[in-house]
Amino acid sequence: MENNFFKNIQKIKFEGKESDNPLAYRYYNPDQQVMGKSMRDHFKFAMAYWHSMNDNGADPFGRITNHYPWNQETDALQQAKNRADAAFEFLQIMGFDYFCFHDIDLIAEGSSLAETEKRVAQITSYIKEKQQQTGIKVLWGTANCFSNPVYMNGAITNPDFRVASRAAAQIKIAFDASMELGAENYVFWGGREGYLSLLNTDMKRELDHLGVFFNRMVDYAKEQGFKGNFFIEPKPAEPTKHQYDFDSATVIGFLNQYGLQDHFKLNIEVNHATLAQHTFEHELQVAANAGMLGSIDANRGDNQNGWDTDQFSINLYETIEAMLVFLKSGGLQGGGINFDAKVRRNSTDLEDLFIAHIQGADTFARGLLAAEHILTNTAYTDMLQQRYQSYDGGQGKAFEKGELSIADLYKIGINQGDIPHTSGKQELYESILANSF
Amino acid sequence: MENNFFKNIQKIKFEGKESDNPLAYRYYNPDQQVMGKSMRDHFKFAMAYWHSMNDNGADPFGRITNHYPWNQETDALQQAKNRADAAFEFLQIMGFDYFCFHDIDLIAEGSSLAETEKRVAQITSYIKEKQQQTGIKVLWGTANCFSNPVYMNGAITNPDFRVASRAAAQIKIAFDASMELGAENYVFWGGREGYLSLLNTDMKRELDHLGVFFNRMVDYAKEQGFKGNFFIEPKPAEPTKHQYDFDSATVIGFLNQYGLQDHFKLNIEVNHATLAQHTFEHELQVAANAGMLGSIDANRGDNQNGWDTDQFSINLYETIEAMLVFLKSGGLQGGGINFDAKVRRNSTDLEDLFIAHIQGADTFARGLLAAEHILTNTAYTDMLQQRYQSYDGGQGKAFEKGELSIADLYKIGINQGDIPHTSGKQELYESILANSF
Amino acid sequence: MENNFFKNIQKIKFEGKESDNPLAYRYYNPDQQVMGKSMRDHFKFAMAYWHSMNDNGADPFGRITNHYPWNQETDALQQAKNRADAAFEFLQIMGFDYFCFHDIDLIAEGSSLAETEKRVAQITSYIKEKQQQTGIKVLWGTANCFSNPVYMNGAITNPDFRVASRAAAQIKIAFDASMELGAENYVFWGGREGYLSLLNTDMKRELDHLGVFFNRMVDYAKEQGFKGNFFIEPKPAEPTKHQYDFDSATVIGFLNQYGLQDHFKLNIEVNHATLAQHTFEHELQVAANAGMLGSIDANRGDNQNGWDTDQFSINLYETIEAMLVFLKSGGLQGGGINFDAKVRRNSTDLEDLFIAHIQGADTFARGLLAAEHILTNTAYTDMLQQRYQSYDGGQGKAFEKGELSIADLYKIGINQGDIPHTSGKQELYESILANSF
Amino acid sequence: MENNFFKNIQKIKFEGKESDNPLAYRYYNPDQQVMGKSMRDHFKFAMAYWHSMNDNGADPFGRITNHYPWNQETDALQQAKNRADAAFEFLQIMGFDYFCFHDIDLIAEGSSLAETEKRVAQITSYIKEKQQQTGIKVLWGTANCFSNPVYMNGAITNPDFRVASRAAAQIKIAFDASMELGAENYVFWGGREGYLSLLNTDMKRELDHLGVFFNRMVDYAKEQGFKGNFFIEPKPAEPTKHQYDFDSATVIGFLNQYGLQDHFKLNIEVNHATLAQHTFEHELQVAANAGMLGSIDANRGDNQNGWDTDQFSINLYETIEAMLVFLKSGGLQGGGINFDAKVRRNSTDLEDLFIAHIQGADTFARGLLAAEHILTNTAYTDMLQQRYQSYDGGQGKAFEKGELSIADLYKIGINQGDIPHTSGKQELYESILANSF
Repeated sequence: MENNFFKNIQKIKFEGKESDNPLAYRYYNPDQQVMGKSMRDHFKFAMAYWHSMNDNGADPFGRITNHYPWNQETDALQQAKNRADAAFEFLQIMGFDYFCFHDIDLIAEGSSLAETEKRVAQITSYIKEKQQQTGIKVLWGTANCFSNPVYMNGAITNPDFRVASRAAAQIKIAFDASMELGAENYVFWGGREGYLSLLNTDMKRELDHLGVFFNRMVDYAKEQGFKGNFFIEPKPAEPTKHQYDFDSATVIGFLNQYGLQDHFKLNIEVNHATLAQHTFEHELQVAANAGMLGSIDANRGDNQNGWDTDQFSINLYETIEAMLVFLKSGGLQGGGINFDAKVRRNSTDLEDLFIAHIQGADTFARGLLAAEHILTNTAYTDMLQQRYQSYDGGQGKAFEKGELSIADLYKIGINQGDIPHTSGKQELYESILANSF
Repeated sequence: MENNFFKNIQKIKFEGKESDNPLAYRYYNPDQQVMGKSMRDHFKFAMAYWHSMNDNGADPFGRITNHYPWNQETDALQQAKNRADAAFEFLQIMGFDYFCFHDIDLIAEGSSLAETEKRVAQITSYIKEKQQQTGIKVLWGTANCFSNPVYMNGAITNPDFRVASRAAAQIKIAFDASMELGAENYVFWGGREGYLSLLNTDMKRELDHLGVFFNRMVDYAKEQGFKGNFFIEPKPAEPTKHQYDFDSATVIGFLNQYGLQDHFKLNIEVNHATLAQHTFEHELQVAANAGMLGSIDANRGDNQNGWDTDQFSINLYETIEAMLVFLKSGGLQGGGINFDAKVRRNSTDLEDLFIAHIQGADTFARGLLAAEHILTNTAYTDMLQQRYQSYDGGQGKAFEKGELSIADLYKIGINQGDIPHTSGKQELYESILANSF
Repeated sequence: MENNFFKNIQKIKFEGKESDNPLAYRYYNPDQQVMGKSMRDHFKFAMAYWHSMNDNGADPFGRITNHYPWNQETDALQQAKNRADAAFEFLQIMGFDYFCFHDIDLIAEGSSLAETEKRVAQITSYIKEKQQQTGIKVLWGTANCFSNPVYMNGAITNPDFRVASRAAAQIKIAFDASMELGAENYVFWGGREGYLSLLNTDMKRELDHLGVFFNRMVDYAKEQGFKGNFFIEPKPAEPTKHQYDFDSATVIGFLNQYGLQDHFKLNIEVNHATLAQHTFEHELQVAANAGMLGSIDANRGDNQNGWDTDQFSINLYETIEAMLVFLKSGGLQGGGINFDAKVRRNSTDLEDLFIAHIQGADTFARGLLAAEHILTNTAYTDMLQQRYQSYDGGQGKAFEKGELSIADLYKIGINQGDIPHTSGKQELYESILANSF
Repeated sequence: MENNFFKNIQKIKFEGKESDNPLAYRYYNPDQQVMGKSMRDHFKFAMAYWHSMNDNGADPFGRITNHYPWNQETDALQQAKNRADAAFEFLQIMGFDYFCFHDIDLIAEGSSLAETEKRVAQITSYIKEKQQQTGIKVLWGTANCFSNPVYMNGAITNPDFRVASRAAAQIKIAFDASMELGAENYVFWGGREGYLSLLNTDMKRELDHLGVFFNRMVDYAKEQGFKGNFFIEPKPAEPTKHQYDFDSATVIGFLNQYGLQDHFKLNIEVNHATLAQHTFEHELQVAANAGMLGSIDANRGDNQNGWDTDQFSINLYETIEAMLVFLKSGGLQGGGINFDAKVRRNSTDLEDLFIAHIQGADTFARGLLAAEHILTNTAYTDMLQQRYQSYDGGQGKAFEKGELSIADLYKIGINQGDIPHTSGKQELYESILANSF
C-alpha cells in the first residue's frame, strides 16, 4: 500500500531497548512469546479512530489546532474515504491489527438520521474493501450518542421517548455497520446516560429503560447471528455530572439486576478508573472477579486534574499491576488493548501521533515482561499463596465452603489463644514490583 | 432522672425560628405533623455512642483534648456505667428516643475476647435496666472489628482464618447484646474489610468469605428470632486504601451476588457518600431504587479535605435534596437518623455537644419542612411528571414494558421528524429548592 | 428601549420572599440599604458577556445546543450588533448596571489581528452609543488570549517570542477598547499561561516574561491615563494542566516579586477557589489581607466534578461566609459581582437565562442580609474579639509589635502554669451562621 | 558497634541491579560518581526519627500494631536511650549519614515544659556522644508543636498568647538541642498553624504573629551563631482544615512579605505536594525559581486517598522529574533527602523497615542515574534550549530585559505574518523520560 499521508514515516520496527530511535519499538516485539502466547495475541493492539484520526485539538477554551490533511475535504464521503486511507496507512505503519470506531468517526453525521444511515453504509463498504486488502480487523464498534445536541438530556435514558427511540435507531445502524465490518465486539459507552441534576431526574425509571433496551439488543444480536461480545465501558462522570455506568462494580450490579450478565462484559479505561477513585488494576480485578474482563481502553489520566485527559500510557507501575491481573485471570475475554488516548492539543507534528502510540505499546509490552518476571522468577506467587493457606484446608476450608455456622465460628474464635501478628509485607511486594524492570 | 454530668443544661425545648437561644430547637418540634407523620417518627433521631460519649479529640497528629468526666474512672465496669449514665442523661436532655453503639463503645475491651464477652454482658444488663426506666431504645448495634490490632489485615476478610473466626465470634457477641437491648436493627461497617495494596490481596477470595459469613449471619439471626434489619454501611476508603463496601451501588451488587438481598438494607452516611464522589441524595436514591433505603448516618464532610471529618450537618441544600428522596420513597425502612458526627477536637466545652446535636436536628427538621413545601406547594411534582410523560402511554409505555424490539424502535426513531429541544429547566428546579426555606 | 429578543420577559421586579414568581427578585431590592449602602452599590452586579450572550452549550463531548437568535447573523459586524442589542435588553430587564467582556465576545475574531482590531473598533463605537443611551457601564474588560490556536503553547508566556508579541498586541487592543468604553477595571486571566508538561517548560523564564509584560502594561496604562484597577484572576488549572495564577496567595506572591503590588488587585472566582482546594471565603480573605480584594466572579462549582462547571450561585453558606469577609474588609476595591456563570447545556429556553441570573442575584442579596444580621444582631463579633483579646494589651501586644525576643518569650512560656483549654466554639459559630437566614 | 535490636540484619550492601536480595541496594552505590559528585553527597540520606523509631502503627480507626522493642521501657530516659541505640544501629546498617528529629521524638514529653526541657537535655547529651563515636550527623531538628493538646487551637498562631509563648519556649528548647547536636538545618512545620473554621479565625492577625515570631527566631539564631538554614515545610491541610503553609508559592510569598526571604528556604515533601494538587517536581521548581530549594522529605502519597499516607517512594517517573529539577538547579541548598515515610500499619516485621528504606534509596539513586542519562545522552537539553531560543537574542531578548514598551510590542505583534504552529513535543519528551531507565 502506498504511503500518502505519512510519507516520511517508515514502518515501525522493534529495535530493542538500547535504541534511541523515537520511531522504533524498544519493547513491543509482536511475535515474541510471553507465557506461551505472542505479544501480538496478548494485546490485539487497536487504534482509536476518534482520537487518532478525528481529534483536532479543540478544547473547551480553545479552537482547533490540528488540521489533519485527511480531514480537509469538504465533501463528507470523500473526506471519510481520505480518513479511512489515513487510518489504514497508520495501522500498517504501526503494525497494529485492529481499530475501534464510533459510527460518526467514520463519516460526518448527515442532516437527518436517514441521511447518516446512508453515509455510514457508503463508508462501511469502502472500509470493508480496505480490510480485505490488508487483513486489518475491527476490535469493536460503537455509536456516538452523545455529540448530537438531540441527546442533551440523555440518549436511551432520555425523559422523552422520541429521543430514546432515535438513539435506538442510531445504535441499530452502528451495530449493523459493526457486524458488516466483522467487529469482534460491540461497545456501549453512555456519555449522556446519567444526570446533570438529580432534582429533575427519575433515576429509577431511566435505569429501567436502559435495562429494557439492552435486553432488546441482546435479542437483536442473537437474531442477527452476532458472535461477538457486548461491552459496557464504565465512567463516573463527564460529560454528565453523574454517569450511570460509574465504575465496574456499578455496571456489574446493573447487568445482574437486569438479567444481562451472560451477554455483557466490561471495557475498562484507565483514566475512567482513576476518575472514579479507583486504580486501573482495581477495576480490572473487579471485572475479572465477575468473569467480565472483556477489553481495555489504554491511556492515563493526570493525577492533578479532575477530568479525562486521555494521555498515552507511560506508567509502568500501573501497567505492571494491570498485567498481573491480566495474566492471572487469563487475559481479555474477546477484547484487546485499544489506545483511547490523544496527543496533546499542542502536539501538532504528524510524527507526534506515532511517537505517542509507540510509547503506549512499549509501556504495555514492558509491563507484560515485568509481570511475567514477577510471576515466574520471584517469590511473589508463593508469598501470595502462603498468605491465604489457612483457607486451603481444615476449618478455614470448611468456612469457605459455608459449612460452619456462626455458633461454630464463635467456638473456634473464642477458644483460640492470642493470634500473632502476620506482616502484610507490602513493602516487600512493592520492592518486587519496582525491581521487575 | 437526676442530672449529674450536665448539671447546667436544661431539657432542650422547641422555641421556634426566632429564638436566639443556642440551647433550644428552632425547627425540630417532635410532635409537629409533616405529611401525616410526626417529626419524631419521621426521624427517630439517635445519638452515636462512639462520638458523643467516647470521642476524646485525639487525631493522627495530636493527643487527647477532651477528657469527658464520665470516662475518667479506671475500673472498666464503673467507667462503662458512668458513661451509660451520661448517655441516658444526654438523650433525655436532647429528647432523643434512640442511640446506636459498637460493642466496645459500651465498655472497654478486655485482654481476651472471653473477657470482653463477660464485660459486654455486664454493661448490657446495666443499660437494659436504664432503658426500662426511660423508654429509650436502640436504633442499631454493631461490632467494632477495626480498632483491635488483630484486625490489621482485615476482619472477616482477613487472609488468616484465625482472625476471621475471631471476628465472627466478636460479631456474635455484639449481635447477641444488641438483641438483648432490643435493637431494631444491626449494622455491618467493614472498616478493615478492604485492602491496603492489591499486590498482596486475593480480592475474590476475600469477598467470597464475606458473602459466606453474611449468609451464616442470616441463618443465625433467624434462629435467634431477630425481627430487625441487617444494614451495610458503605464507605469508599479509610482506614483501608480501598474498602469493599465502596458505595451503595457496589454494596447492592454484592448483596445480590451472594443472595443476601432479602435480608439486608443500607445505612447511608453523608460523608461516606461525598468521599465516594457522590452526593448524599444520590446514595439515598440508589438505595431507594433497590428498596434498600434502611437508615441514615447524619453528618457532613469538608469539601476541601479528603478524609471523613464527621462534622454535624448544617447544609440545607443537601438535606432538602435528601428529604425529597426520603419522602418520595416512603421514608426509611426500619432505621432512623443517627448523628454520626463529632464536635471538633478543639470544642471542649460540654455545651458544644448539645449545640452541635441541636443544629443537626434542626437541619433535618428544616429540611423536611422545605421538602414538604416543595412537594405540596410548588410546581415541582407536576414538572417532574410532565418531563417523563411520553412513557406514560403509547409507544413509550410499550418500550418501557419491553414490548418493542430493536426493529420497532428503529422504525419509530428513524421516521419521526426533527425532535425539538426540551429544556431540562435545571435552574428553575434549583430556584424552587433555594426558595423553599 | 424596545424589547426585541426577550419579548415575553418583563422587567424583573423585587416582589419579596413570599413571591412564587420565578421571574421576580425575592431578596435583591436594589435600593434597600444594608449597613449604610444600597444593595446596588454593594454589588455592582454585572453580566458576563461570554456566558450570557455567547455561550452555545457545546461541551467537549457535544455540539451546540443553544442557538441564541442574536448570534445567527453571518456577517460579523451585524451579528455583533445584534448581540449587543440583546445584551443591553437583557441588562435592562435584569436591572443590572454593568457588564464584563473579552474582546472577542463583542465581535468574532478576524482572519488577522489587524482585521480583529478593525472589528473591535467598529463594535466598540456601537456599544459606546448604547451605553450613552442607557447609562450601563463596563465593570471590566479583558482580552481572550486562549481560544485562538496561536496560543496553544501559551500567550505572554509562550516559548516563542512571536506569539508573546502577538498576545501583547491583542491585549493592547482590548485594553484600548476597554478604556474607550469607560471600563472601571481591566482583568488578566491567563488561560494558557501555565504548562501542560513541566518537562518541556522553563517555568522561571516564562514567569519572568509575564512579570516584565505586566510592568510594561503598568507603564502603558499610566501613559493612557487609565484610572481603573488591574485585576488578576487566579485559577489552578484548566485549560492547562497547571496555571501560573494558581490561587490568591500565589498571585499575590508573584505581584510582590515583580514589583506590581501597587497596581494590581485580585478578581476572585468561586469555582476557581474550590478547584484550588480552597473555599471561596478563604480566597477572599487572603486577598483582603493583602489589601487586594478587587472583584468577584460569582458562580459555583460541583463538589463531585473536577472541572469548572460555572453554575449560578445558590449556596447561602458559602455566600454568607463570603459576605462576612466582604463587609468586614470594606467591600470590593473597584470591582463588583460579575455573574461568570452559564446555564446548563440543556437549559435551552430563553427564560432560563433570567431565572438563573435572578437566583444568583438573590443568593448574594440574601447572603448580604444574613451577614448583616450576624454582624449586628448576634454574639459573633464579640466572640471573635474576645478570642484574640490576649493580644490587645500587655505581653501579647508587645509580642505582636515584635518587641519580645525569643529569650523573653521563653521566659514567659516556661514560667506560666498549666494553660486551660479554651473551646474554639466552632459549632456555636456555625449555628449562628445556619440560623442567620 | 554491637548490633542489639537488629541482630539478623547485616549492613546493607550495594549488589547491583541483578541482585534479588531484598536486603541489598540495587542502585544506591554511595561512592559512585554522578555528574561529578558521589551519590552520598548528592543525597545526604537521612532517617526520620518519628516514623522509623517512634511510629507504632496506630491510626484514627485502630490501636497500636507495632511494638518496637526499643520503646518498651517505661522509664522515659531509659526508653529514649534504647531508642537512640536502635536509631544509630539502624543508620549504620543502612549506611546513612544523617537523621532528622522532633524534640519529643527523642524523649517523651514531661508533665511540664520545664520537665521536658530537662529530659531533652539529658537525651541530647547521650546522642551527642553516639554521634562522636559514629560520625552520624543531624540533617535537621524541629519542634513538635502539634501533638500536645495545648496546641489544639494553634501554636504560634494561637488566639491565646499564653499558648503562643509556650510554643516559642518549646521551639527555643528544640532549636538549642538541634544546635547542640550540630544540626545543619532547622525546620518549621506548622501542623496546627492554620484553621479549622474561618468563621472563628482572624487569619491576618495570626499570620502577622507568625511573621513576627520568625523574625525573632532569625535574631536568636544569629545571636547563637547558628550557621545552618531555616526551612519551612509546606502542607495544604491535615491536621487542620487549612494550613497556612499551603504550598511552595504560598510560603515564598509569606517569607517575602515578612522580610524573611534571606533566612529561610523550603523543605519540600512529595506527599504534601500532591495533596496540594501539585506534582513533586512542580513544588521543587517553584522553590528553585526563588533560590529556596533547601531540602526534601521523600515519600509518596496514594492517588486515590485524600490524606497524607507517607509511603516510601517507588515511583521513578516523579523521582526522575524531581532529579531533573534537582540537577538543573544545582542540588539542595543545605539539606538532603529525608525519608519521611512509614511502613504500613500491618508491616510488623523488623525487616520491613529496612526493605522500605532500601527501596526508597534505590528509587532516588535510579532516578538520579536516569536524570543524568537524560541530561547527558539524549536530545533533551538541546530540545529545551531551542524551544526558547527566540528570547536569546534580538527583540525577544530586548523584551525579556524589559526594553520593549507595549507600543513596541504592539508594532511587532501586529505586523508579523501568520505564526506557524510549533509542536510542544510533549510525547517525545515523555518518551525520553520513559526510556531513560
